[in-house]
Amino acid sequence: MATTGLPFDDFRELLANLPGPDEAAVNAVRERDPKLTKPPGALGRLEDIAEWLAAWTGRPPAVTRPLVAVFAGNHGVTNQGVSTFPPEVTAQMVSNFAAGGAAINQICIAHDLGLKVFDLALEIPTGDITREAALDERACAATMAFGMESIAGGTDLLCIGEMGIGNTTIAAAMFHGLYGGTAEEWVGPGTGAKGEALMRKIAAVETAVALHKPHLGDPLELLRRLGGREIAAMAGAVLAARVEKVPVIIDGYVATAAAAVLHAANPRALDHCIVGHVSAEPGHIKALEKLGKTPLLALGMRLGEGTGAAMAAGIVKAAAQCHSGMATFDQAGVSDKE
Amino acid sequence: MATTGLPFDDFRELLANLPGPDEAAVNAVRERDPKLTKPPGALGRLEDIAEWLAAWTGRPPAVTRPLVAVFAGNHGVTNQGVSTFPPEVTAQMVSNFAAGGAAINQICIAHDLGLKVFDLALEIPTGDITREAALDERACAATMAFGMESIAGGTDLLCIGEMGIGNTTIAAAMFHGLYGGTAEEWVGPGTGAKGEALMRKIAAVETAVALHKPHLGDPLELLRRLGGREIAAMAGAVLAARVEKVPVIIDGYVATAAAAVLHAANPRALDHCIVGHVSAEPGHIKALEKLGKTPLLALGMRLGEGTGAAMAAGIVKAAAQCHSGMATFDQAGVSDKE
Repeated sequence: MATTGLPFDDFRELLANLPGPDEAAVNAVRERDPKLTKPPGALGRLEDIAEWLAAWTGRPPAVTRPLVAVFAGNHGVTNQGVSTFPPEVTAQMVSNFAAGGAAINQICIAHDLGLKVFDLALEIPTGDITREAALDERACAATMAFGMESIAGGTDLLCIGEMGIGNTTIAAAMFHGLYGGTAEEWVGPGTGAKGEALMRKIAAVETAVALHKPHLGDPLELLRRLGGREIAAMAGAVLAARVEKVPVIIDGYVATAAAAVLHAANPRALDHCIVGHVSAEPGHIKALEKLGKTPLLALGMRLGEGTGAAMAAGIVKAAAQCHSGMATFDQAGVSDKE
Repeated sequence: MATTGLPFDDFRELLANLPGPDEAAVNAVRERDPKLTKPPGALGRLEDIAEWLAAWTGRPPAVTRPLVAVFAGNHGVTNQGVSTFPPEVTAQMVSNFAAGGAAINQICIAHDLGLKVFDLALEIPTGDITREAALDERACAATMAFGMESIAGGTDLLCIGEMGIGNTTIAAAMFHGLYGGTAEEWVGPGTGAKGEALMRKIAAVETAVALHKPHLGDPLELLRRLGGREIAAMAGAVLAARVEKVPVIIDGYVATAAAAVLHAANPRALDHCIVGHVSAEPGHIKALEKLGKTPLLALGMRLGEGTGAAMAAGIVKAAAQCHSGMATFDQAGVSDKE
């Protein structure tokens, strides 16, 4: 692709030229699996996960350095009264993450996952999407680049999550912009909006999508106009993970909006990703259908912070351990099928 | 209840007088939950699990000594050609468990769970249920008592599982005996039976239920006639857990058959149990509907060994850690809802 020197150009080129799966690693899993001491297929989705890990790491299934990366951003659209919590809560929750007091900290303890939290210019909310673009191209591209760098420290399983008061409104606007339908279809309670707050949320999504409509055919334009910093950073992290051979677990409604931008740019862009859970936010399952993804868990969670992805990381770890740790029929002296 | 001195009498009395939940512990969870740094309800089913742990342990939610107990037995009904694997595989898999080579060993590693395996007179298969009762009352009661003792070593979360070539035929016969319908409705492939083997399995279940029909109104009679040693031991373990304040995670199709006997005797008998997963064995979801249980996971697994329960234990551990480890709004300095 010819570049024009604009900040998004590198991302457009990367999205058009994504690496594919490692067929040799997949074949090695397919050869080993029937020898393991279990009936064929008896581990169900754990067997698919083992193949998927091999496909996107290029190695036998293993999870030794799982990482939850949580990106936090603030949103000008909170001026529209769309959230039940004040915007200061974003920074307060980042402190809570640092102090170990949030839900995601507990799940990382329970499942032995690393946790990194990135706060993205919390003191400078993005533009109010009902009136202007959230970000200019340069800021959006820079934040995507930051997200790409964020996973450079080394991990072999990346869970992406977020924190940002107002960002279920942002995600709803993005899905409405990407997939059409009505604003009502995509807007849900988020942290608990109902009644008039919910009506304001729907109105904000309608207004924003109508305002930016002429530019929404380009996924990266949609990201900068309707998205936010944590969204752009998550998109960058997912993209970098593809290049660096790191499989990704996507979290809930907001994280899925970031992933959906990449999918709109290239339908193969999320092949290295699984979706950890389906959120109780009503629009999430519809978004997952658009992406062709079946969530691993359905626990009625709707917290963000990467909590659903981190819950699913426990399943992925067990899947890797089963494939790589189990004895074969020969090793165990177990009779195979008659 | 007046006792007659028969071996089942103690179990009948116990089943009629089960302890209830600890309301004070539940109330303590309900008081703490709204103070935690998350929107109310945002952890979905994890919040229900925290209450459930408190209800049945009588303490704040915690999982410090999770245990998977796997019971192994052999079945005379394998004479009817119902399984794709030879009956020697039961003992071979017990050796595989001891050597650490089975799927359940890997999941216990991944989720840091203890594992105990109990082999129950593997050299003496139970009676062929198509021709006679699986066990006499004394042997069945003794095996239930063994199952009760098996958890005495101390655990605060019990996962029950099993190994036994032929035991999906046994479970299908039990469900057919308990819930009616047709044998076809309850029989599934198990380790992989299809074609003629599947027809033999259906025929065996039909024959067995027809033979024992006059006695199946009594759940303990159904257990001894259509069940098996690992089934009786699992029923005993679930019962003992209730008395000893240990919450239980039930595994798949066969473990659920053991639990269903208790439920038939007392509809409240499984209140201290959750179901870890829904098996790919087609009858499992129907059995769970009869029990009013919603499985935590749906991963298409159908292996037994306690693997589905052990996968769910990772979720239960995280739920306990979230409730007990999270900071409150006050502690974290996070603003509550506006």
